[in-house]
Amino acid sequence: MKMISEIEQVTKLDEGGITTPKGFQAVGIHTGVKRKRNDLGAITSEVPCSAAAVYTLNKMQAAPLKVTQDSIEKEGKIQALVVNSGNANACTGKKGLADAYEMRRLSAEHFGLEEHLVAVTSTGVIGEFLQMDKISEGIKQLYPQATAEAAYDFNQAILTTDTMQKHTCYQTDVNGKKVTIGGVAKGSGMIHPNMATMLSFVTTDAVIEPDVLQGALSQITNKTFNRITVDGDTSTNDMVVVMASGLAGHTSLTPEHPEWDSFYQALEETCEDLSKLIARDGEGATKLIEVQVSGAKNDEEAGMVAKQIVGSDLVKSAVYGTDANWGRIICAIGYSDCDINPDAIDIAIGPIQTLSQSSPVSFSEEEATAYMKDSDTVVIAVDLHVGDGFGKAWGCDLTYEYVRINAGYRT
Amino acid sequence: MKMISEIEQVTKLDEGGITTPKGFQAVGIHTGVKRKRNDLGAITSEVPCSAAAVYTLNKMQAAPLKVTQDSIEKEGKIQALVVNSGNANACTGKKGLADAYEMRRLSAEHFGLEEHLVAVTSTGVIGEFLQMDKISEGIKQLYPQATAEAAYDFNQAILTTDTMQKHTCYQTDVNGKKVTIGGVAKGSGMIHPNMATMLSFVTTDAVIEPDVLQGALSQITNKTFNRITVDGDTSTNDMVVVMASGLAGHTSLTPEHPEWDSFYQALEETCEDLSKLIARDGEGATKLIEVQVSGAKNDEEAGMVAKQIVGSDLVKSAVYGTDANWGRIICAIGYSDCDINPDAIDIAIGPIQTLSQSSPVSFSEEEATAYMKDSDTVVIAVDLHVGDGFGKAWGCDLTYEYVRINAGYRT
Repeated sequence: MKMISEIEQVTKLDEGGITTPKGFQAVGIHTGVKRKRNDLGAITSEVPCSAAAVYTLNKMQAAPLKVTQDSIEKEGKIQALVVNSGNANACTGKKGLADAYEMRRLSAEHFGLEEHLVAVTSTGVIGEFLQMDKISEGIKQLYPQATAEAAYDFNQAILTTDTMQKHTCYQTDVNGKKVTIGGVAKGSGMIHPNMATMLSFVTTDAVIEPDVLQGALSQITNKTFNRITVDGDTSTNDMVVVMASGLAGHTSLTPEHPEWDSFYQALEETCEDLSKLIARDGEGATKLIEVQVSGAKNDEEAGMVAKQIVGSDLVKSAVYGTDANWGRIICAIGYSDCDINPDAIDIAIGPIQTLSQSSPVSFSEEEATAYMKDSDTVVIAVDLHVGDGFGKAWGCDLTYEYVRINAGYRT
Repeated sequence: MKMISEIEQVTKLDEGGITTPKGFQAVGIHTGVKRKRNDLGAITSEVPCSAAAVYTLNKMQAAPLKVTQDSIEKEGKIQALVVNSGNANACTGKKGLADAYEMRRLSAEHFGLEEHLVAVTSTGVIGEFLQMDKISEGIKQLYPQATAEAAYDFNQAILTTDTMQKHTCYQTDVNGKKVTIGGVAKGSGMIHPNMATMLSFVTTDAVIEPDVLQGALSQITNKTFNRITVDGDTSTNDMVVVMASGLAGHTSLTPEHPEWDSFYQALEETCEDLSKLIARDGEGATKLIEVQVSGAKNDEEAGMVAKQIVGSDLVKSAVYGTDANWGRIICAIGYSDCDINPDAIDIAIGPIQTLSQSSPVSFSEEEATAYMKDSDTVVIAVDLHVGDGFGKAWGCDLTYEYVRINAGYRT
């Protein structure tokens, strides 16, 4: 596992965001698809960017995802990305697909770009057609700027049931040049009626070819975005897009580049930050849960076990109830598909060891409860003692509020 | 799919239970492992019974399951089954295994049987040693009787967070002889601290060899017990045991027997009833949800899709909120690993069609809400239109009460 401390030149910019890397502008406005809040936004670049993207594995993929794939496939580049919230344009058939293409066409026209340089995406209610009158009128009002305010407006435009904005920024050096990576995300539950798809957009001024960028993004997604769970439901609209403007001016990055690790780590930190922010803002959540699994057969299995634990409703409920319930944790380990030794498992909840070599350790329930109560992030650490694999996963507690949000919407 | 109407001689006995088939007795008593309610019980037979069992797939299998497997492997027969509740004897290492063997030995001694004719099982808190003093004293007080009252006492002795007893009984004819099957079950969530393992015990006077019975039970379990979900967590102690006394006196049943289907159906109905009772009594549940999937590639995929839908927290919350939210249903279909055609899916919620060929059907939200509000069982029917596969799965709604039960236990 790469730790931030390993590579000193990777630093976090607390105030940075998607408009911090060289060449990027953003905008967010209100068109009326949603009642009050911003519902249309764009990220644009001064130059065509190397593009990489990952899409939902849900077979009911929404129309805009198909259009964005179509754009990126052409030459691996995009220069603008347009997003609406309030309507997911999912399960909308041929008309939905035509609408998504029209949204791309209108955006390309407005920004003076070729169509295949534009990506589109949507989040919101599924099964309803896009209000194309409002969207087309809105696109004409999109005037992106390279400011922090513009990034804020964009972020507002992609939120749904989110209770907070989610953004991060990292910087590193490549060939003595500053390379900056900014990221923004939304998402807290799943979909209709919660309009809570997971979307992440990352900008960077790094010089990197599309296929190299895609390789890094795919690897990193498996360790970050694919390691979070709020309710186990995968939306029809999930998407992560990275745009690299190349304006930092160093030699092109490849895995053979002497400073590849530094860039890779900065990108991973960006994606991990966004993932944790999404999990932390899970519907109804009061806490972030981080599960760290070591001693697995390999890193992949470690990640699978971690995700199994963090996805257990019983574990999630126990964290909400500040109950150091290792029985539920070991049960979740037992029904994962991974190699385990039932007699050699250690479990700690924060600083408190609860199970050693699969035998209960006597611990203070009071201390454990106090730890869980006082921690914004509850860490569960598991050692399987079968190999060297390590992996993390993130989720949130299961609360009354989750049930209220998801049961109470229409009534 | 076999329907109860297909084979007329299969009838349900509303008042029947595990002591209705010929040769069976039961008992349930209070030993003090639990504070007030019965916590130790036994089912015994006048003669050694053909035995079949299925066990949890959780790798952290509890000690008594190993002992029961050991018993049944010997010659495929058991004559007594002893259960305690309040303590699961799980994650208890070598001492736990020794305790389970001792529980078997004491029971065999008390009932005057060879040890390998005794099965043992436990349900309750995990990670604590059995209170062997209470259990051994209790075993000496077990005097089984062939009455409905004794079956009631046994049923009480296996309950934990269950809010009701769960039993059923079917009868059919084989070679002109009455064959009776009785079943009892417990279970509503997962485990510690809810002590909510799934256990089912089925008795029958059918004449059938152990391996034939095992074949039928394994097949039927896949369509019944393995098709229910309350919270997705598989307990360390789950077990289903069938005992066949052979006292009905017909010719031995095999799949070639002319009345095999009739017996098979009666056993399946028994297991399906118990499965639905368990799902209906899921922790905090107010409703049973039955998902019926037709038109899948095959029966197995139909069952997988059905279980995926009924296991979605978002679908479960929507049912609690009486929200006819087909978007969540189609999303759950989309992330199953099965063959689907995204453009050809029908969804109905009770009598209300909500999606046809993947396009929204206009329906009355009021009628849909009324249906869900008034129904004790909410039926979700899906047609995938890719093949002839059919399957069902059962679950329950996700409620505030589930969170309360599972978050609030220790505090």
